Amino acid sequence: MNHSVTCTHRLVLPVDTNHHGTLYAGALLRIALEAAYITAHQAVGSGANLLLRRVLSLECYRPVPVGSMIEIRGVPLHMTRAYLVVGLLGVPLANEEGPWMDGLMGFVQVDSDGQPAPFPSELATPSTAEGEWKELGERMEKLLRVR
Amino acid sequence: MNHSVTCTHRLVLPVDTNHHGTLYAGALLRIALEAAYITAHQAVGSGANLLLRRVLSLECYRPVPVGSMIEIRGVPLHMTRAYLVVGLLGVPLANEEGPWMDGLMGFVQVDSDGQPAPFPSELATPSTAEGEWKELGERMEKLLRVR
Amino acid sequence: MNHSVTCTHRLVLPVDTNHHGTLYAGALLRIALEAAYITAHQAVGSGANLLLRRVLSLECYRPVPVGSMIEIRGVPLHMTRAYLVVGLLGVPLANEEGPWMDGLMGFVQVDSDGQPAPFPSELATPSTAEGEWKELGERMEKLLRVR
Amino acid sequence: MNHSVTCTHRLVLPVDTNHHGTLYAGALLRIALEAAYITAHQAVGSGANLLLRRVLSLECYRPVPVGSMIEIRGVPLHMTRAYLVVGLLGVPLANEEGPWMDGLMGFVQVDSDGQPAPFPSELATPSTAEGEWKELGERMEKLLRVR
Amino acid sequence: MNHSVTCTHRLVLPVDTNHHGTLYAGALLRIALEAAYITAHQAVGSGANLLLRRVLSLECYRPVPVGSMIEIRGVPLHMTRAYLVVGLLGVPLANEEGPWMDGLMGFVQVDSDGQPAPFPSELATPSTAEGEWKELGERMEKLLRVR
Amino acid sequence: MNHSVTCTHRLVLPVDTNHHGTLYAGALLRIALEAAYITAHQAVGSGANLLLRRVLSLECYRPVPVGSMIEIRGVPLHMTRAYLVVGLLGVPLANEEGPWMDGLMGFVQVDSDGQPAPFPSELATPSTAEGEWKELGERMEKLLRVR
Repeated sequence: MNHSVTCTHRLVLPVDTNHHGTLYAGALLRIALEAAYITAHQAVGSGANLLLRRVLSLECYRPVPVGSMIEIRGVPLHMTRAYLVVGLLGVPLANEEGPWMDGLMGFVQVDSDGQPAPFPSELATPSTAEGEWKELGERMEKLLRVR
Repeated sequence: MNHSVTCTHRLVLPVDTNHHGTLYAGALLRIALEAAYITAHQAVGSGANLLLRRVLSLECYRPVPVGSMIEIRGVPLHMTRAYLVVGLLGVPLANEEGPWMDGLMGFVQVDSDGQPAPFPSELATPSTAEGEWKELGERMEKLLRVR
Repeated sequence: MNHSVTCTHRLVLPVDTNHHGTLYAGALLRIALEAAYITAHQAVGSGANLLLRRVLSLECYRPVPVGSMIEIRGVPLHMTRAYLVVGLLGVPLANEEGPWMDGLMGFVQVDSDGQPAPFPSELATPSTAEGEWKELGERMEKLLRVR
Repeated sequence: MNHSVTCTHRLVLPVDTNHHGTLYAGALLRIALEAAYITAHQAVGSGANLLLRRVLSLECYRPVPVGSMIEIRGVPLHMTRAYLVVGLLGVPLANEEGPWMDGLMGFVQVDSDGQPAPFPSELATPSTAEGEWKELGERMEKLLRVR
Repeated sequence: MNHSVTCTHRLVLPVDTNHHGTLYAGALLRIALEAAYITAHQAVGSGANLLLRRVLSLECYRPVPVGSMIEIRGVPLHMTRAYLVVGLLGVPLANEEGPWMDGLMGFVQVDSDGQPAPFPSELATPSTAEGEWKELGERMEKLLRVR
Repeated sequence: MNHSVTCTHRLVLPVDTNHHGTLYAGALLRIALEAAYITAHQAVGSGANLLLRRVLSLECYRPVPVGSMIEIRGVPLHMTRAYLVVGLLGVPLANEEGPWMDGLMGFVQVDSDGQPAPFPSELATPSTAEGEWKELGERMEKLLRVR
């Protein structure tokens, strides 16, 4: 992997929950988007002006109890001149195996008029996804072929 | 289509925007989830106890200016004993052609312990997606095969 | 009734509650306003530019537990060249009779300077309120005479 | 007036605005409810356990620009053994005459089961509304007869 | 004390809580800032254009349960031509002795370009802090010397 | 420094701003608290159950424009058996020198009854603050002596 992993932490508060006392899906999606946006922003660097173009995939594996300190890791997994796909992993909660969520979100760079534009500088192509990112990378490859 | 379409309206306020004065992706995802959840809830009827299991796809086609009254249509496109996929379409804004977003979200029914459970009553299988839902239905068929 | 009913659904989340675990009145008022605003917007159609002018009446009949999927129906009950009153009904919750709330909210049309203006097109006068709207229509008639 | 006036101040932030850059009606209603609730709570004293029962009237006279420091005055205008009506006045903004809003909200006392209950101590009956409260007091008298 | 005390009341709702069911520190800080800002605004009067410059001190003494009606008192304790320090006291909750929080926040006046500016009119120097403000006034004197 | 730095990123959205289009102080304090809480949580590790005890100092040096991607660095600067002080630095914005904020926040560990308790494991005493943390560390030493 050429790019370093970006970590986002968040305390799950009652304001984020559903009536089961776990992370509400609407809040989860907003938090995941923020984690992906920050990852994409770090990868592009200064001059980044990014818009969400698509969610390729987002899976919710386990409920997240209120009071949890969650961590979402993000890494760029695919990159063209003006489009970037971020992989996301919800780091396993205490006493659990496997991530509580994972996802793939694609962002485009836009200019000041909101029109698609190349990234401000050439970005290194991410190498093949490895380790904990392997499965997500493979899913992305399949999904990129579908569209 | 056996199921009627569920419509969700929302006024886009400054609280929902990014610094470009358009609908922020984090707010868009939360609003889309709510529209999908309401659609799924209507389809399942009383006894519904649903959790978001996955976002199969969500596409953002056009920025949505602050002050817009948006409408998201939802319809169940796939259904098994305990799993349901909702299709979403953001109805074209004034003076625009084509939806500003579309999406596919899958929900599971759970019992009071949060464990997967069959729906409280048997649901009619949606017929093949037609009209404005055709394209989304075809994308869903491909995506269901990927996983 | 010449106008069709507009339905607004909402899942009551902990973020919307008071410390009794039921819908907080401040959240209820905001949700009711949104339902009324959407109803008025649908009735006026494109070119609508509406401001809340008054709440003629809003009654809270029953507490709404967290986790409820609520539905508010709205319909225009009174209309002049530049002023419109929307009736609201909170559809009875499971196992309850009678609405959990009802209300009457009046909106004015304004031009781009925020000055009162006629509606962009002539609107059909609502016929006398009937069915579930009868009582609310009668209350409105009395209240319109008070002011 | 036997009861002292309760003042509530609030800075109007972008989070509270509509797309015209003025106080959004949904935020206004929530803020007005909070001001009324605090007024009622002060009047009843310790042991207060209040629920909004109705909005008898709420009028919006002028838009409130973002950045305004608003002040809402509240006073109990009517009181029975278990029901209390609060009058509200939005203190005129700089360079304006007349309040930007006024309103009348009725609260009930409930016991720990949420059932109507008498107030914990006998409350002084408010004397006839005078001064800036006169007009609102007269409107209330008419509205109390309507219901 | 030349300046009158400004009181801010707030009902602690689930939206403001942590997972222990008490006021979340992030919400507490925002509420305290608002109370201090309102106090400073009242002291400076019309023409006030204030920015938070520093928190000199903020102490949290006791958890505040959801459902509490809290009161924060604020008073200007120090004033120069363009800088003002507000003292804050969280009025003891029912059945408790001593404040649940206190604090000292410093604000600067700025002109329309955001540059430091003198206050619009000369403000009375607060006399030595007395009564319930004595301890906070002494802490402030020590802290002003540290910087 | 024995402890690694914890970074928190955040996109400043309109929901976070004041009417000048910059980060509102109330939002800044909440974001700073979250960054400090995450830092403290990382330092204590699993078993952390932390409450904010005090803000020793928080300085706002420069306004932060809407749309900024901000980064707050946090590090434990002081530690006893049950109390921990976190230092915070707002990483300079593009084209600016010096942090836009810094701060010092103290947290206590509590047991399940909310009573002060020792940390679950012995924590390394932070070495003397160096580099960009030097000034903040010195300010902390002075402030710890004041109280």
